[in-house]
Amino acid sequence: MTSTPWRGFASDNYAGIHPEVLDAIARVNTGHQVAYGDDDVTAELASAMQAQFGPQAEAFPVFNGTGANVVALQAMTKRWEAVVCATSAHVNVDEGGAPEHGAGLKLWTIPTPDGKLTPELIDTQAWGFGDVHRAQPGVVTITQSTELGTLYTVEEVAAIADHAHGLGMSVHLDGARIANAAAALGTGFREFTTDVGVDVVSFGGTKNGTMLSEAIVVVNPDASPGVDFLRKSSMQLASKMRFVSAQLLALLTDDLWHRNASHSNAMARELEARVRAIDGVSVVRPVQANAVFAVLPPTVTERLQKRFRFYTWDQATGEVRWMCSWDTTLEDVHSFADAIAEEMSAEAS
Amino acid sequence: MTSTPWRGFASDNYAGIHPEVLDAIARVNTGHQVAYGDDDVTAELASAMQAQFGPQAEAFPVFNGTGANVVALQAMTKRWEAVVCATSAHVNVDEGGAPEHGAGLKLWTIPTPDGKLTPELIDTQAWGFGDVHRAQPGVVTITQSTELGTLYTVEEVAAIADHAHGLGMSVHLDGARIANAAAALGTGFREFTTDVGVDVVSFGGTKNGTMLSEAIVVVNPDASPGVDFLRKSSMQLASKMRFVSAQLLALLTDDLWHRNASHSNAMARELEARVRAIDGVSVVRPVQANAVFAVLPPTVTERLQKRFRFYTWDQATGEVRWMCSWDTTLEDVHSFADAIAEEMSAEAS
Amino acid sequence: MTSTPWRGFASDNYAGIHPEVLDAIARVNTGHQVAYGDDDVTAELASAMQAQFGPQAEAFPVFNGTGANVVALQAMTKRWEAVVCATSAHVNVDEGGAPEHGAGLKLWTIPTPDGKLTPELIDTQAWGFGDVHRAQPGVVTITQSTELGTLYTVEEVAAIADHAHGLGMSVHLDGARIANAAAALGTGFREFTTDVGVDVVSFGGTKNGTMLSEAIVVVNPDASPGVDFLRKSSMQLASKMRFVSAQLLALLTDDLWHRNASHSNAMARELEARVRAIDGVSVVRPVQANAVFAVLPPTVTERLQKRFRFYTWDQATGEVRWMCSWDTTLEDVHSFADAIAEEMSAEAS
Amino acid sequence: MTSTPWRGFASDNYAGIHPEVLDAIARVNTGHQVAYGDDDVTAELASAMQAQFGPQAEAFPVFNGTGANVVALQAMTKRWEAVVCATSAHVNVDEGGAPEHGAGLKLWTIPTPDGKLTPELIDTQAWGFGDVHRAQPGVVTITQSTELGTLYTVEEVAAIADHAHGLGMSVHLDGARIANAAAALGTGFREFTTDVGVDVVSFGGTKNGTMLSEAIVVVNPDASPGVDFLRKSSMQLASKMRFVSAQLLALLTDDLWHRNASHSNAMARELEARVRAIDGVSVVRPVQANAVFAVLPPTVTERLQKRFRFYTWDQATGEVRWMCSWDTTLEDVHSFADAIAEEMSAEAS
Repeated sequence: MTSTPWRGFASDNYAGIHPEVLDAIARVNTGHQVAYGDDDVTAELASAMQAQFGPQAEAFPVFNGTGANVVALQAMTKRWEAVVCATSAHVNVDEGGAPEHGAGLKLWTIPTPDGKLTPELIDTQAWGFGDVHRAQPGVVTITQSTELGTLYTVEEVAAIADHAHGLGMSVHLDGARIANAAAALGTGFREFTTDVGVDVVSFGGTKNGTMLSEAIVVVNPDASPGVDFLRKSSMQLASKMRFVSAQLLALLTDDLWHRNASHSNAMARELEARVRAIDGVSVVRPVQANAVFAVLPPTVTERLQKRFRFYTWDQATGEVRWMCSWDTTLEDVHSFADAIAEEMSAEAS
Repeated sequence: MTSTPWRGFASDNYAGIHPEVLDAIARVNTGHQVAYGDDDVTAELASAMQAQFGPQAEAFPVFNGTGANVVALQAMTKRWEAVVCATSAHVNVDEGGAPEHGAGLKLWTIPTPDGKLTPELIDTQAWGFGDVHRAQPGVVTITQSTELGTLYTVEEVAAIADHAHGLGMSVHLDGARIANAAAALGTGFREFTTDVGVDVVSFGGTKNGTMLSEAIVVVNPDASPGVDFLRKSSMQLASKMRFVSAQLLALLTDDLWHRNASHSNAMARELEARVRAIDGVSVVRPVQANAVFAVLPPTVTERLQKRFRFYTWDQATGEVRWMCSWDTTLEDVHSFADAIAEEMSAEAS
Repeated sequence: MTSTPWRGFASDNYAGIHPEVLDAIARVNTGHQVAYGDDDVTAELASAMQAQFGPQAEAFPVFNGTGANVVALQAMTKRWEAVVCATSAHVNVDEGGAPEHGAGLKLWTIPTPDGKLTPELIDTQAWGFGDVHRAQPGVVTITQSTELGTLYTVEEVAAIADHAHGLGMSVHLDGARIANAAAALGTGFREFTTDVGVDVVSFGGTKNGTMLSEAIVVVNPDASPGVDFLRKSSMQLASKMRFVSAQLLALLTDDLWHRNASHSNAMARELEARVRAIDGVSVVRPVQANAVFAVLPPTVTERLQKRFRFYTWDQATGEVRWMCSWDTTLEDVHSFADAIAEEMSAEAS
Repeated sequence: MTSTPWRGFASDNYAGIHPEVLDAIARVNTGHQVAYGDDDVTAELASAMQAQFGPQAEAFPVFNGTGANVVALQAMTKRWEAVVCATSAHVNVDEGGAPEHGAGLKLWTIPTPDGKLTPELIDTQAWGFGDVHRAQPGVVTITQSTELGTLYTVEEVAAIADHAHGLGMSVHLDGARIANAAAALGTGFREFTTDVGVDVVSFGGTKNGTMLSEAIVVVNPDASPGVDFLRKSSMQLASKMRFVSAQLLALLTDDLWHRNASHSNAMARELEARVRAIDGVSVVRPVQANAVFAVLPPTVTERLQKRFRFYTWDQATGEVRWMCSWDTTLEDVHSFADAIAEEMSAEAS
């Protein structure tokens, strides 16, 4: 079993496990623990999450982001309710139809310029209350930071939450990159969740340096009954839970989450700066977290992808996505930026 | 984050991670790897599984046993088909309704004396083919070793598979404890799966010493299309897959699976032997894998459970279950047997 | 389009439409009406149902019994709850897996001697509250009259409802033959529903003489939110609703339901009496509604089925089912009983 | 039970039952018939549908259009496949989430100017084949005539079918108003279905003058296995099927479908002509079937709706929808056009 080390900018889940997380797993690997979450480590995680999200918060560790989202959205909806989201939301485009398939959830999708919903945009789908022909809008889900590398300000989240609550809807925040968002905003987690009315959070660990671990953080228990049952019936309950909890706890220990996230954000800004200096490459979206979206000549992209892995985001426009992760180094960024410059020159000549 | 080590006989998933598994995780934690399974480690696992199950076999790592079962059963059934299983099957009694809830699968359940189906028992539910009022029996699922600690012989599995295939049905084997079964039978995996007509296996890793990892092993690809898609839509696709695959690969390296399973089986036999020597305690089921089922006076059970964790299986009869795991030591068994003897004496006096 | 008239004892849905029902359809076939239930006829039905079930009751017409049951059970359960029923319940054996397939509902089934649950029987499945591994028992459903032609007394239903409510569960009554039950008990509908704690009723019309029409009668609105939405999302909302409502209204007009039901019950008693006089034929279940279950020699059954249609209920025991319907005549019964006697004599000789 | 006759332009399902349909129901109301579709009338319907759609076609009567669509789309998709449709499709906006809720189907929606898909538009969602993160596009569904009163030409349907088949997808046609389409195109049904590659049709009866009846017509049985089972598990199987079949058979007898459809189409054209003559009212979509979409001043709409029922289609633009039905008379049209003119004058003065 050998694995030749290489690096790239394809995704923050191409990176491995942060050493402090692996250590945490090893440290709790002693003796027996009650399975399925009634263990000491999960209890400690519960407290740590309450320190972040407030004393009423409840944390339910799960395996992955799709699981966190689908369990949370089920708990937040009645059987006849639907979910309002951006067309670009991960829950819509990248989960293989899991919300519909596994939970019978209809998504009311809204095109956005930048991956972000607003009260006005929400109103384009949040209507028809009481009309049985229309799957009833029950939840708004937003992604923070978004799939397009953008960020909601605290005020923007507050405005959405107020608006949704005013309509009788609740608010879910898909925080697969919640750490990147908090680091970029210069806040903790609760400033843009608990404090402004978000009801339930999918708290991401994997992209922030764990092996595999996410948590459903129920900020407002009234909005989300039955998560414990739904986690099991949705196949997201780990038997040896202590090892999932230990990973998340490691992130919350000594601010590892913040160190990892602020680092990957910084690497993205560095990459952006380097790339902006290269003629012919446009950075096409605000770099607010750990993603850089750029447009290159397709032939350059093709040659570059032989040297570094990354994804083409939009075949039609030539837009590509470069993700930085907790393990991206300054050398990685510089070698990559140099390679981009080289291939652009080769193109020009 | 501290976790005071203790031991017990509650479940093989109360145990931790075998050191060779943890090492394997650490060993593949270098550089980037393509996410979602297109990585070197998962490729190596695929080969290792083919060495076990035959060159046509395909392995799909997932998070947990419920996930493995529900994804496999979906792939094996058409939308209108149902699953035939023992009433005592994990898929029926212990998965929170996941097959029905997440996959719309009806279970046709069959009471059994020992957790084992037979062709005759299967016939009590496998009928009504072509009748639209009856959810069509499409798959038989059996558990090996069973939830009651019993074992199917190779011949018994073969008879079930022949019978099911003769009815146009396919066969799934829930192998949450497949290693215990193979070790007990003195065979490899394929002798009671591939070689006798089992179509799809849920291959258990967690109870055999991993942190969290199971695999759907599609022995007969014709019987089970779309597992890759269904794994995603059922929320069972790990992004950093290499770390799930590495765990399973560790089990298949240097026969770790066999060492762990034969050890826990031996511990169960030792416990059985000790307990049979204690007056007033009856071992009520054949000890064929790593579980011992016994009947004790409830007052003894109550006192014992303050000293060692284990589950009461049937409140009405006083039956209890004692599970041995890869980390159960001879000392554990002897201290526990001594404690049983003590509490029985206390009861008698 | 010709349809040669013939008669039989196969099922009460082999019969046609009672003339008063067909007249009612024709009578409301004038001009336009608002679709989907906001019409005058449906409003009139709502009042008529309240006259039967109490002023708090709400009636939701649907197409068929499976639809009524599945919509009702969805409304009565949270996403993680399951349904407790007799193994012989229509919802378990005769609905093609609709509860599981269309609504994700797990059924906890209980074998019964006579199709009837009791508090003691319910306890064999209504346990494990709070345990996430066990699909949570949320509803008890009983069938009145049962699939085996038996009847719950008012006291028996009351005992079940009290017991279920004590466990925090609610009670559904599958009344595909509720009219036969009421006629047999000599009561109205509310005596064994509203008055004793049944929460929701599937009110059957089709087997009582309509063309196609059932209603979900929500006796206790607190127990069953969202029926209006779930009826639509479960494909049970008729556009030209007035014609469904008119059928049910016809049953409630001039006691047509009672005339039809007491007649078919009487025909079953007459058939029973005649058959009991025939040597070698055993009536094997109490004849309490409109079904007669008997055991005959298989060769007799075979010859008889060439002369009159009816179903073999259990191939193994030779048990057959004879259903009487609103249109069964005394002549039908006598000719059939004579035929049975003839074929039995032929057998004996 | 009284129902004061009135008329309006709200929907073609506000109209009642055509007398020939009611006669057909009465005519088959003699004696017993086997339930659930094994009856003489349903057999006769099967032949009549084959006369329309070709000898390989199979017809499955169901209760309503949502049922027809959801059963058909389930049969046409594997468990992991999704449906491509126009954003304006009934299946997306008007079925209360039934496709997602009852069948786990994801809809990939496409905005269109006129309710019509094209190969180019389909390509905006029909991509990502083989990518497990993307719910796999499996079926294209089109509505004929569309929800916006427009029509696909035979060539347009052919182009879509060729394109979809080239992508490995199949084609469903939601024909809630298929009769209006055929009448408007001057063809039979098969010219724009069977003959050009449509695989499955939801054949509408209710809006064409029946009481309640639609049929799934499987034109290409290979594309759609299991409809019989899925009809039952989706709660769309009528017990007294003969009465559903008789309604559809009546439509296919003496060209009743064509008489009804060409009449309602003609009424829509007449209304269009009258309205075009009124200053200040714009007909904003091509009138190709039985719907007229127009823009009026909201105050006029408000006053008009007190005199005649119809729906506002888009609150923002003031667009309204006027539907003609089989029972719309020339007098209805003229009175309504006069009323529009009056209210517009009142507005102007």
